[in-house]
Amino acid sequence: MTPHNLAALNTAPATDFVAALAGIYEHSPWIAEAVVAQRPFASLLALHDAMIGAVRGASADKQLALVKAHPDLAGKAARAGELTAASTSEQMSAGLDRLSDADYARFHRLNDAYKARFGFPFIVCVRRHTKDSILRAFERRLAHSADEELATALTEIFRIAALRLDQAVAADDKLKVAGRISTHVLDTHAGHPAKGVVVELWELSASGDSRFVARGITNSDGRTDAPLIGGRPVPIGVYELRFDVATYFADRGISLPDPPFLGIVPLRFSVAEPEGHYHVPLLVTPWSYSTYRGS
Amino acid sequence: MTPHNLAALNTAPATDFVAALAGIYEHSPWIAEAVVAQRPFASLLALHDAMIGAVRGASADKQLALVKAHPDLAGKAARAGELTAASTSEQMSAGLDRLSDADYARFHRLNDAYKARFGFPFIVCVRRHTKDSILRAFERRLAHSADEELATALTEIFRIAALRLDQAVAADDKLKVAGRISTHVLDTHAGHPAKGVVVELWELSASGDSRFVARGITNSDGRTDAPLIGGRPVPIGVYELRFDVATYFADRGISLPDPPFLGIVPLRFSVAEPEGHYHVPLLVTPWSYSTYRGS
Amino acid sequence: MTPHNLAALNTAPATDFVAALAGIYEHSPWIAEAVVAQRPFASLLALHDAMIGAVRGASADKQLALVKAHPDLAGKAARAGELTAASTSEQMSAGLDRLSDADYARFHRLNDAYKARFGFPFIVCVRRHTKDSILRAFERRLAHSADEELATALTEIFRIAALRLDQAVAADDKLKVAGRISTHVLDTHAGHPAKGVVVELWELSASGDSRFVARGITNSDGRTDAPLIGGRPVPIGVYELRFDVATYFADRGISLPDPPFLGIVPLRFSVAEPEGHYHVPLLVTPWSYSTYRGS
Amino acid sequence: MTPHNLAALNTAPATDFVAALAGIYEHSPWIAEAVVAQRPFASLLALHDAMIGAVRGASADKQLALVKAHPDLAGKAARAGELTAASTSEQMSAGLDRLSDADYARFHRLNDAYKARFGFPFIVCVRRHTKDSILRAFERRLAHSADEELATALTEIFRIAALRLDQAVAADDKLKVAGRISTHVLDTHAGHPAKGVVVELWELSASGDSRFVARGITNSDGRTDAPLIGGRPVPIGVYELRFDVATYFADRGISLPDPPFLGIVPLRFSVAEPEGHYHVPLLVTPWSYSTYRGS
Repeated sequence: MTPHNLAALNTAPATDFVAALAGIYEHSPWIAEAVVAQRPFASLLALHDAMIGAVRGASADKQLALVKAHPDLAGKAARAGELTAASTSEQMSAGLDRLSDADYARFHRLNDAYKARFGFPFIVCVRRHTKDSILRAFERRLAHSADEELATALTEIFRIAALRLDQAVAADDKLKVAGRISTHVLDTHAGHPAKGVVVELWELSASGDSRFVARGITNSDGRTDAPLIGGRPVPIGVYELRFDVATYFADRGISLPDPPFLGIVPLRFSVAEPEGHYHVPLLVTPWSYSTYRGS
Repeated sequence: MTPHNLAALNTAPATDFVAALAGIYEHSPWIAEAVVAQRPFASLLALHDAMIGAVRGASADKQLALVKAHPDLAGKAARAGELTAASTSEQMSAGLDRLSDADYARFHRLNDAYKARFGFPFIVCVRRHTKDSILRAFERRLAHSADEELATALTEIFRIAALRLDQAVAADDKLKVAGRISTHVLDTHAGHPAKGVVVELWELSASGDSRFVARGITNSDGRTDAPLIGGRPVPIGVYELRFDVATYFADRGISLPDPPFLGIVPLRFSVAEPEGHYHVPLLVTPWSYSTYRGS
Repeated sequence: MTPHNLAALNTAPATDFVAALAGIYEHSPWIAEAVVAQRPFASLLALHDAMIGAVRGASADKQLALVKAHPDLAGKAARAGELTAASTSEQMSAGLDRLSDADYARFHRLNDAYKARFGFPFIVCVRRHTKDSILRAFERRLAHSADEELATALTEIFRIAALRLDQAVAADDKLKVAGRISTHVLDTHAGHPAKGVVVELWELSASGDSRFVARGITNSDGRTDAPLIGGRPVPIGVYELRFDVATYFADRGISLPDPPFLGIVPLRFSVAEPEGHYHVPLLVTPWSYSTYRGS
Repeated sequence: MTPHNLAALNTAPATDFVAALAGIYEHSPWIAEAVVAQRPFASLLALHDAMIGAVRGASADKQLALVKAHPDLAGKAARAGELTAASTSEQMSAGLDRLSDADYARFHRLNDAYKARFGFPFIVCVRRHTKDSILRAFERRLAHSADEELATALTEIFRIAALRLDQAVAADDKLKVAGRISTHVLDTHAGHPAKGVVVELWELSASGDSRFVARGITNSDGRTDAPLIGGRPVPIGVYELRFDVATYFADRGISLPDPPFLGIVPLRFSVAEPEGHYHVPLLVTPWSYSTYRGS
């Protein structure tokens, strides 16, 4: 989908503006309608804030209706292919479209328990999550009070809206929705950046599975040309960077034991802030390494 | 089996001496017979060296017969339970008794290729190996010349004999057959050894499986009370030490993100010398860690 | 002076016991007299505790007299050579016998201010201090209340007594009066302990001077054969370990720039607990190093 | 002096061009004259290369005259204030204008020995050196053959010319004459860059003196706003970065011993390539630190 241009939206007929932004909030075009008269918006952030303001200024009934307009996570509607395109794509991002039957049943039970307790569906900004972190959030939030939980649901809806706006509308500014996982490799045996190191990023699940995310090769500055994850939220979860240092040092002609003391070096860390920058470097010799959360 | 005492063996009737040591070399009591007249032995090492001398001094035919007296690795005799007790236990140590059908077929093919090329079975001191390292040795040794390979087979037989002697005979000295994997954890956030860290040692296979080896908890000196592997050869292979640092820092009352940046820290390294000491420490804060091959 | 033996003291005539221990407390043989009837002492610690008990059980006047029996630090009596042998040796340990005129005048002023405020001389266990830490203690303690300061003076007197007892009496147990500075060097370029590294320990003063303390050469385990300081309190102060890593790596045949990136590596740290063990290792390549308070 | 503009020089009368560049080579305007007909120069580098070409293309006599046109280092002419302005400023940069009498005598002896051996003065691009590195170069080069030494002298003259050109002529390109010393501080206790750390750069001499070079304070990215040395060659020599980490951690409210284990952390390293980038970071907790040559 080609994004709309903010400048064009600022001057378009009101109906076009509403049509363009109707889907930013799930099944709730009234929010776009509520801000159309505030045009022109100086920035994407101004537009986003105005729409948030419209929700916060609406009646409690309308807010609740907005919350209830959202589908279940990994629910029957998702299985039946009845979600909005945006929701479908979001639920896929965390792998909710490829759950085992046991996981599907678990989500089903949690959805039912949540709705029985609060009277509305569990809402989370899925693009900021992995399956594991959704399940943990589910359990943590079941212990909330109803007021806390309504506030939490709105916060998540605003996060979903920010991501949808970011994709739907091009502007000079960017909403702060993207995080980053990056690395660099310093060869402290040679005293310079390590060039040509193959590095892979894997996502680990609580069940012990690992899922390949991205691969890169370090350049002469010891960095991959692009971050391993960038331009989008980094789902809350556990990750492993895996560096093939044995091949790197063998290519440098260093004499190594067979097998070398260090082969694939895994650096395992968790992401708690999807919009954070996780720079996780490797300082390495054939016999030692260190890492840290860098900047 | 209670070990024999070297002093007792030195003064026992010759037939008892030979009976006690008949199994040190597979189906070859003639080697014990060859050294009985050299008694008394001042040390276990002297006895071991004498038996090696008997083999090296024997005719080429006798040496070849010794080599041929060994069973196939993961062969039909093993499957049929027809090995000596020592061989059975040795092959179990590397998991050769629980191969998949595909692995069994692979060993079968390699055994056949090896025997076709050299005329005797492939011999390796299994207690110093994992399945992966045996398979790599198989392939590497198939490229040897016949002379090289006979020499290699004898070297492996002497290693097997040393381990059998070490178990069969108690003496004041010890043969150098044992390696070690150990660790210690230093909390560089607090500036003292980390006490109470749960650490596990896993063996990783080339196919991606991992096998639990041992678990320990660090004491007030930051060390486990015993090495994770000790008192025996460390099989050539890939290992991972896994430290539960998130629980440790949470127990210390440190405020951490959810999930914490560092949860389980894996240190992956390979062992190339089964008799080596692999001391692999962890220096750790909630945000950084380093490791090295220590001493 | 040959130390007395605790067992012999336990059975000696009372006058000999008192004569042997008369100097443990400055000009105060009454303390030895007070405990002679409690013999035999099972350990040096029991003797030490008994003498402390005698002081604590004495009248306030007697305690004050004990405090007043001590000489000024760097005072006129010291300059005139009128101190007890023990006091003379103690004051030399912190360099108080070689003060500049300015420092001497500063001590003089502080002594006068302290005596004017508290009515007794400033007492500190000099063997646990450097000149700088004495001066800081002086200033900090001038702000104390009289009660606090009398208690502090007694604590220091007990520390002095422990050190004098430790030197004067041999027994099966040792009083905990000794700290330690030690190091080891790990060559993480080669993956083994660094052998043959020359390391020096220097004491740094606030005025920028540095004083050589000890030199060692690392052995095949990467350690000096003896700690750089051991068997005595480590004076509170700032220290620098200086490792000649350029010579070490050049001797190993590593190609280095001219001058090498790392020549002499200084590790600077402070000692706050004279009875503590300060193990300060160096992990080093020609291009990187790290250190930590170890154990 | 306002630099000339390359574009203006390209179109100026030939005499003006020569006047502007007469001093790039010491007392040798013939070199500027030799390239005036090659105008216009597309870049500063093209101009520099053309002037080098003119020297290399000149007769051996002319080259020798160029070499001999240079003054002694720390020689009588310098003491008498008879040098060109460029030479005076250059010799000051390495402190040759504030030598002790002993050092002056040492330079005098070396100058005499050098001239006796080679027949021309010792030339070195002083801005790339400290006094110590000049003295070492002096001794090393005295062992050269005459041919080697003439080549070395010309190389140094070209380096001097590059630095003079860089200051005298503004253009779109820059000659590669500048190196850099920079740092950053990462607080691995807190997991983020250390803000507000005072860091000083000192130059150390072989005689034990140290000379203050620059001071900075780390910003929220853990870096100083500007490199400690930048925009000029980094003189070959020994440096120390000194970080006040005790104040930093105390300001963060961390409980520390008195005195803190780490107070001022010195990182000592040598510079061998004046045009290199020396990025020397500090990763630090109150109990540990590491450094490396970064990028």
